[in-house]
Amino acid sequence: MLTRSQVKAAQARTAEILEDAGIALSAEEREQVEVASFGLDDLETEGLQLVTYVNTDRYCAKELVLFPSQTCPEHKHPPVGHDPGKMETFRCRAGKVYLYVEGEPAKSIQALIPQRSKDYYTVSHEIVLHPGQQYTILPGILHWFQAGEEGAVISEFSSTSRDEFDIFTDPNIVRVPMMKD
Amino acid sequence: MLTRSQVKAAQARTAEILEDAGIALSAEEREQVEVASFGLDDLETEGLQLVTYVNTDRYCAKELVLFPSQTCPEHKHPPVGHDPGKMETFRCRAGKVYLYVEGEPAKSIQALIPQRSKDYYTVSHEIVLHPGQQYTILPGILHWFQAGEEGAVISEFSSTSRDEFDIFTDPNIVRVPMMKD
Repeated sequence: MLTRSQVKAAQARTAEILEDAGIALSAEEREQVEVASFGLDDLETEGLQLVTYVNTDRYCAKELVLFPSQTCPEHKHPPVGHDPGKMETFRCRAGKVYLYVEGEPAKSIQALIPQRSKDYYTVSHEIVLHPGQQYTILPGILHWFQAGEEGAVISEFSSTSRDEFDIFTDPNIVRVPMMKD
Repeated sequence: MLTRSQVKAAQARTAEILEDAGIALSAEEREQVEVASFGLDDLETEGLQLVTYVNTDRYCAKELVLFPSQTCPEHKHPPVGHDPGKMETFRCRAGKVYLYVEGEPAKSIQALIPQRSKDYYTVSHEIVLHPGQQYTILPGILHWFQAGEEGAVISEFSSTSRDEFDIFTDPNIVRVPMMKD
């Protein structure tokens, strides 16, 4: 688990990155930035910061913030009840994103696989997103992503988000929902 | 109908406003900015510019751009087949937005109702959105909105968009889909 002060520091850094990208948050949103370390206790390597703007039973929108070279570990969104699984569109707003999905593997990938967890990164079809570029990930497709050296901001447009049902390749991962300080 | 050169000018102006707001578009998106004059031939007064990032059978995301004091006329999103009607969240990214929906009328509203069409603005419950503020409009609810004097950029997160089914209060309005040059 991250300490309270680690969470607060990551929240403040996230708000600053968004501000630099021209993205305004309300005071309440700044306080509620979600800091996900996936139970791995190395936020800088494997982690993700999220601001959820809206999540209804019909659609969801978030900003995803990655620190420099930070990685969101490999996972997929399974069907949940009548929902065929989350479908999501990643639109890069700032920085650079290396995104990997199922499909033809790249000969060599540009991202750096976190060594401690390297067995749990299994897909390597590479998509590189710069600001103004986007990619839609279909339900049930394994994917992971990493920021370039400058970090990244991604707007995520999607169907309903039910993070607690996400299936991670790494069995050590615990996807805790909304961590507040 | 707008002329081809009017459309091209509005597209270029829209791309510039988005760039000023720190929102990057691809070259293709810049070419395909939708310029909606609603068949009223007075774009500066009643009109809207749109960039649709994604519109699937599950969710939709757009940027809406309003020129200074430009107004999107009153309308609602009815049920279409099994869809209960479009639900949409407006998030102000830049400028100021005066949004009007059904509900307790404001004693006096801050927006300026377009005089030529004044009989077709019937709801006046007022919400004012600054950058970082948002509001969700439920299906079937009449609404209209106007930018402040500096114009506005709104990110719209929503269920599937089927603009051709929108019901406008003004019977003179024709909501033409996607106008390309």
